[in-house]
Amino acid sequence: MALVTAPPPAPKPATEDLKLTLDRPLVLQSGVTLSPVTLAYQTYGALNADRSNCVLMCHALTMDQYVASQHPVTGKPGWWSDIVGPGKVIDTNRFFVVCANVLGGCMGSTGPKEINPATGKAWGLTFPVITIRDMVQAQAKLLDHLGIEQIFCVIGGSMGAMQVMEWAHRYPGRVFSAVPVAGSYRHSAQNIAFHEVGRQAIMADPDWCHGNYLEENKVPKRGLAVARMAAHITYLSEPALHNKFGRRLQDREAPTYGFDADFQVESYLRHQGHTFVDRFDANSYLYITRAMDYFDLAQENGGVLSNAFKGTPVRFCVISFSSDWLFPTEESRAIVRAVNAVAGNVSFVEVASDKGHDAFLLDEPEFHQTLQGFIDGAAGARGLPKRAHVTAP
Amino acid sequence: MALVTAPPPAPKPATEDLKLTLDRPLVLQSGVTLSPVTLAYQTYGALNADRSNCVLMCHALTMDQYVASQHPVTGKPGWWSDIVGPGKVIDTNRFFVVCANVLGGCMGSTGPKEINPATGKAWGLTFPVITIRDMVQAQAKLLDHLGIEQIFCVIGGSMGAMQVMEWAHRYPGRVFSAVPVAGSYRHSAQNIAFHEVGRQAIMADPDWCHGNYLEENKVPKRGLAVARMAAHITYLSEPALHNKFGRRLQDREAPTYGFDADFQVESYLRHQGHTFVDRFDANSYLYITRAMDYFDLAQENGGVLSNAFKGTPVRFCVISFSSDWLFPTEESRAIVRAVNAVAGNVSFVEVASDKGHDAFLLDEPEFHQTLQGFIDGAAGARGLPKRAHVTAP
Repeated sequence: MALVTAPPPAPKPATEDLKLTLDRPLVLQSGVTLSPVTLAYQTYGALNADRSNCVLMCHALTMDQYVASQHPVTGKPGWWSDIVGPGKVIDTNRFFVVCANVLGGCMGSTGPKEINPATGKAWGLTFPVITIRDMVQAQAKLLDHLGIEQIFCVIGGSMGAMQVMEWAHRYPGRVFSAVPVAGSYRHSAQNIAFHEVGRQAIMADPDWCHGNYLEENKVPKRGLAVARMAAHITYLSEPALHNKFGRRLQDREAPTYGFDADFQVESYLRHQGHTFVDRFDANSYLYITRAMDYFDLAQENGGVLSNAFKGTPVRFCVISFSSDWLFPTEESRAIVRAVNAVAGNVSFVEVASDKGHDAFLLDEPEFHQTLQGFIDGAAGARGLPKRAHVTAP
Repeated sequence: MALVTAPPPAPKPATEDLKLTLDRPLVLQSGVTLSPVTLAYQTYGALNADRSNCVLMCHALTMDQYVASQHPVTGKPGWWSDIVGPGKVIDTNRFFVVCANVLGGCMGSTGPKEINPATGKAWGLTFPVITIRDMVQAQAKLLDHLGIEQIFCVIGGSMGAMQVMEWAHRYPGRVFSAVPVAGSYRHSAQNIAFHEVGRQAIMADPDWCHGNYLEENKVPKRGLAVARMAAHITYLSEPALHNKFGRRLQDREAPTYGFDADFQVESYLRHQGHTFVDRFDANSYLYITRAMDYFDLAQENGGVLSNAFKGTPVRFCVISFSSDWLFPTEESRAIVRAVNAVAGNVSFVEVASDKGHDAFLLDEPEFHQTLQGFIDGAAGARGLPKRAHVTAP
């Protein structure tokens, strides 16, 4: 860890667009060597003197580094701005929060839409297939660069939870605590199936141009929109769809007996599809879904998940949502059992929610309270200052 | 019912491709008048002297009239040949089984791929949007033609169950008993959402040609395949996918780190998509999914489902499958409660199965035994001869 001796970065009171290009190539899980590798990242708050207050956020499939700041394309608040900020659950007055766009992403980190300097063209399908391990390996290099030997807490939902699991498995000495939310230790057959539908929808679009759409000045909008629509259904529960839309009609009194978006749920899905193509790259969608498909910590460890955590010093807090059918609670329980089996330190909460997988991004007080409790306890164990007392209004 | 006085058709000992063109236009639920209307149908067994032994089968979204005979395109056995045949649960030695391709279908009944005689061209998107009520209305005309005043039993799974519900609601005097299997009284928001994804996938395919692909000598194969893949996932349960495929690789020892079908589940889904386009018409898929979306017996009856069955003489047997998440048991329970609320005659079985929605098409002994028991009881009540004793081998 030679880089730990480098001077710590100046505290960053505000959000800033940051980039790091690694000084060495990255050897990927597939065996392929990737170079150059750039990570685009955001930080919030300031690193403390003994560099012990870093919270690493790992983002989900279509998210990015803008965890708590306005998205540069959509103008919307960051995906976890409910949780991350001054005085919030992940209090940026206490913690130095880091979030990097994943390898293979499309918000500035090296991925298929970036230019390969060796050819002067976008990588496209010449980009190597990456894995969750590769994403985490790249993040570890970023922490080296930031002079952070040990993360206080690594947190992520969905694919972010996969990265959390990989961090805890691969770098147990660098992780004080870990919070996988709405996640799993492996992608299920049903999850792979839904991803494959999305990929086939993208590849079926002639504007995908066999992956070369950037060279051809095209965008596979229709295919990517269909992929997003299919995926979006899996993010919501049936009760959530029922409560939100039911069978209500969209701006009309009676059905039109046609193929317009008669129902609100159709209109909503079409909107989700159409807006997604403005902010996401189709090839990135292929690569990142593939990375999730390949993830299986049990299989990598002789088929026994607990082997991945033998002797682990990591404090885990596993959180699931009762109506999440994409990453059902049973997957989280399997993690809990595995850590228990090696006498590890793990707490577990299944949050009662009817909002489905998306609950991890929504205002779910029980989730936020659970996270707050765990963070405060872990901060005490780590010797970090207590949370400032907040008087209820 | 003038046609009831027509001579009954000659008993049909074997399967035969049959067609009926109605002698009058059909006024659809939308108010549109459709003409001419042809129904392609199959029959099995013979009508008895007092025409009291007819079992009407209603098929699901992508099924057809080949309920118990070899499919003319795929060469596969009929979709319910496990159940329908000599000595089987629906014993064709006892019953006269009728099954018609639905209106809007693509196996010979009037639908978007058939020629509109007024223009000499395929209907395409000029075909009017049809509903479950329209499908059932057309079937009622077929029974008129066959000289059948009352059906002994109307049976169907999935969309077939919707037709069963519509039959019982619309023609209670013509239905002695009704068996909706793995169905509902209305299409849920989640179901509409999945259908909308499929439709958008078809419409996104440039070879769909805005619905005119037949005129253009094209087939929207890629879009229809994606639609089928997405739908197919909803027909299986997560445990079924896990047991059938899990994360096993397809004909390889290690992942290829690419976008080939590394996983068996991907290979299977691609196969489902590719074979579907050989036997199904893309526009039919649009129309039939739309018919399902519009179905809501509660809404049609002032928001109170039991209003649809006030004073019903129909004997119902409602069957669901425990792992069916497309038409969950709760939907069937709502039917049972509604019939109970009007003091109707209803039995209900939730069959324990891990096979998901598809269970209604698979070898599920508890389902078949339930159906056999109900059919035998109802046959007795109707005064039909008892089942021939079958000695166990």
